[in-house]
Amino acid sequence: MTTLVGDATIVGIGQTEYSRAAGRSETQLAAEAIVAALADAGLTSDDVDGLVSYTIDPVEETELVRALGTPEIGWSSRVPYGGGGSQGVLLHAAAAVLSGAAEVVVAYRAIKARSGSRFGAAQTVARPTSSHSGTTAMQWCAPYGVLTPASWMSLNAVRYMHASGATSVDFGRAVVQMRAYAATNPNAHFYERPITLDDHQASRWVAEPAIRLFDCCLETDGAAALVVTRAASAPGASPPVVIAAASASGLFEEEIASNHYRPDLSFMDGSAVLARRLFDETGISRDELDVALIYDAFSPMLLLQLEALGFCERGEARHFIADGNLSPTGSLPCNTNGGLIGEGYIHGLNLTLEAVRQLRGTATNQIRDARTALVTASRTGVILRRG
Amino acid sequence: MTTLVGDATIVGIGQTEYSRAAGRSETQLAAEAIVAALADAGLTSDDVDGLVSYTIDPVEETELVRALGTPEIGWSSRVPYGGGGSQGVLLHAAAAVLSGAAEVVVAYRAIKARSGSRFGAAQTVARPTSSHSGTTAMQWCAPYGVLTPASWMSLNAVRYMHASGATSVDFGRAVVQMRAYAATNPNAHFYERPITLDDHQASRWVAEPAIRLFDCCLETDGAAALVVTRAASAPGASPPVVIAAASASGLFEEEIASNHYRPDLSFMDGSAVLARRLFDETGISRDELDVALIYDAFSPMLLLQLEALGFCERGEARHFIADGNLSPTGSLPCNTNGGLIGEGYIHGLNLTLEAVRQLRGTATNQIRDARTALVTASRTGVILRRG
Repeated sequence: MTTLVGDATIVGIGQTEYSRAAGRSETQLAAEAIVAALADAGLTSDDVDGLVSYTIDPVEETELVRALGTPEIGWSSRVPYGGGGSQGVLLHAAAAVLSGAAEVVVAYRAIKARSGSRFGAAQTVARPTSSHSGTTAMQWCAPYGVLTPASWMSLNAVRYMHASGATSVDFGRAVVQMRAYAATNPNAHFYERPITLDDHQASRWVAEPAIRLFDCCLETDGAAALVVTRAASAPGASPPVVIAAASASGLFEEEIASNHYRPDLSFMDGSAVLARRLFDETGISRDELDVALIYDAFSPMLLLQLEALGFCERGEARHFIADGNLSPTGSLPCNTNGGLIGEGYIHGLNLTLEAVRQLRGTATNQIRDARTALVTASRTGVILRRG
Repeated sequence: MTTLVGDATIVGIGQTEYSRAAGRSETQLAAEAIVAALADAGLTSDDVDGLVSYTIDPVEETELVRALGTPEIGWSSRVPYGGGGSQGVLLHAAAAVLSGAAEVVVAYRAIKARSGSRFGAAQTVARPTSSHSGTTAMQWCAPYGVLTPASWMSLNAVRYMHASGATSVDFGRAVVQMRAYAATNPNAHFYERPITLDDHQASRWVAEPAIRLFDCCLETDGAAALVVTRAASAPGASPPVVIAAASASGLFEEEIASNHYRPDLSFMDGSAVLARRLFDETGISRDELDVALIYDAFSPMLLLQLEALGFCERGEARHFIADGNLSPTGSLPCNTNGGLIGEGYIHGLNLTLEAVRQLRGTATNQIRDARTALVTASRTGVILRRG
């Protein structure tokens, strides 16, 4: 058993505005989110001694330390890739504080996915290595025109549709729920802009027959940050949230975005392994969860993850959703910030902030007395508990 | 105190040949070194569940997992930069196993610094960010022709020469000692090729008046790997080596290679902080050390580190060396593999392998009954002990 458990604790969260044009550098965005998270924790940049981000995050640690004015750090690490690795920063931060390597670790992601290099755009240079994008296998699909994240994912989604009978309407029902959450979240891009299923069905194809425009997450500018300490070191400023379990797995022949080489394209076995680690190996039950934040880069992936994580049987996610289980009164209120599709895409780390808000009781779409939350992104995830 | 201590243990080491033209990819080199390290530990690639390397290492985790055939990993992290961060992989690996996040972690570095993109060559594209090279400040020195690692370092070295009175002859004495070690190490590039001080002084200037050709480490192709577990999990195949202390610090305004912004260019205060962490905070005495491996990208940096680490007073390193303290019978036998200048430059990780060999009693230039070793690279370092 190698699921990290213990009393590593999230004591602060911070973010910038999420926008389409931040008008400042990623380093600036990261620093702003971090300073906000530290203030939320009752700490300052003098207290920071650890930094964790992603290999694909553009901010240099040396520049960030200079921008923050932090005197000395003692831990610095990057999680390979982002997206599916997004919850891996919590694993790193928890390992750093639990092992004694650091006391106050900041996990952050800064991104200009809209005003900078657009994240959903075609990547016409298929580099076989060195990009640390985790998508080296795209060299094999690129010659066939599969050049964008939506098209990479559509290969899996179409196979899933064939195997399960799910259709665009089923994906649309999930999107309608997330847009309903976003509509009441002032932090969301789609605040006050709910949609109907007809609206979803009228949105143009991005990768027919799986992914319409409204199935896609939002290319977003912004930054998000969390502060992690040991429970005993937690300042009193904010209600602490314990990282009850954290895991970041990787399977043989599992790619990150262009994940086309596992035996069954219609099943996310990386998420099944994650569920084994987070639930089976820790003894934490799915029934304990009050809210779930599940990485929704594209809506079909939400259905695949619901099945692989064990919330319903294979092929049953469309019924699970149609039955209202993701709604505020359902069995698994899900993506209560509107998800990446409704709030914005800070590469998944904004989902973790929403989980913390739910467990503090400060979320806009607050689930009553939420005590336990799941945050997952494909093969990485955490279970968080009100401290 | 945030120096990592505990019983994380190095149970295997492996490497490829070190050469000027490996003739195969970095992924291949990494896999070969890892398989060798696992065999040394009595393990196989099926046992690995953690991978640690550097942001500047070109090998993709997804490709490496595929190459190794490892079924499932649960930890993956990268240390920002290499070089001065080289011992940071031991900190990461130790934190992973001590926190319970992984059981068998492999730390590795694969590099084609000679046949690939030559490491010492001029970098004419000064990217302000995103390169994860830790040298963002090079944008300020590049316009003045300071384009190579040797020229970056020479700014510090010249200031040190001015402040301490050290000369090229003093740097040469250190080099002659390392070449003497290399001359009896069949693994070294300069095996059977010792030099005299006159040879050193006759070598051409690379960055006058501080750095001659023989002061430079060797652009090398190859890979090195170590396997880390908890002591209780250590297989019986090899004598275990405990990571008694590990630290990786970073200071405000400290850059990696182009480190020109701390108050005093003639003093490596990053190494002084490292010494505080490794010795003062742990209670381990410098007197306990039987052997030291100190990052010698360029020989002047060795003198600066000897002073900052507290082995002699400021300005006294040249006398410390002239007195023979780095020799096999000195107070601090140093870089017994020939160092990066004599053996080769696997970005510093080959120094760690030599420390393990010394503590196992299997080094070519074996220090009698070595029980405790220091390995440092600027601001990162470990103290290793025979288990």
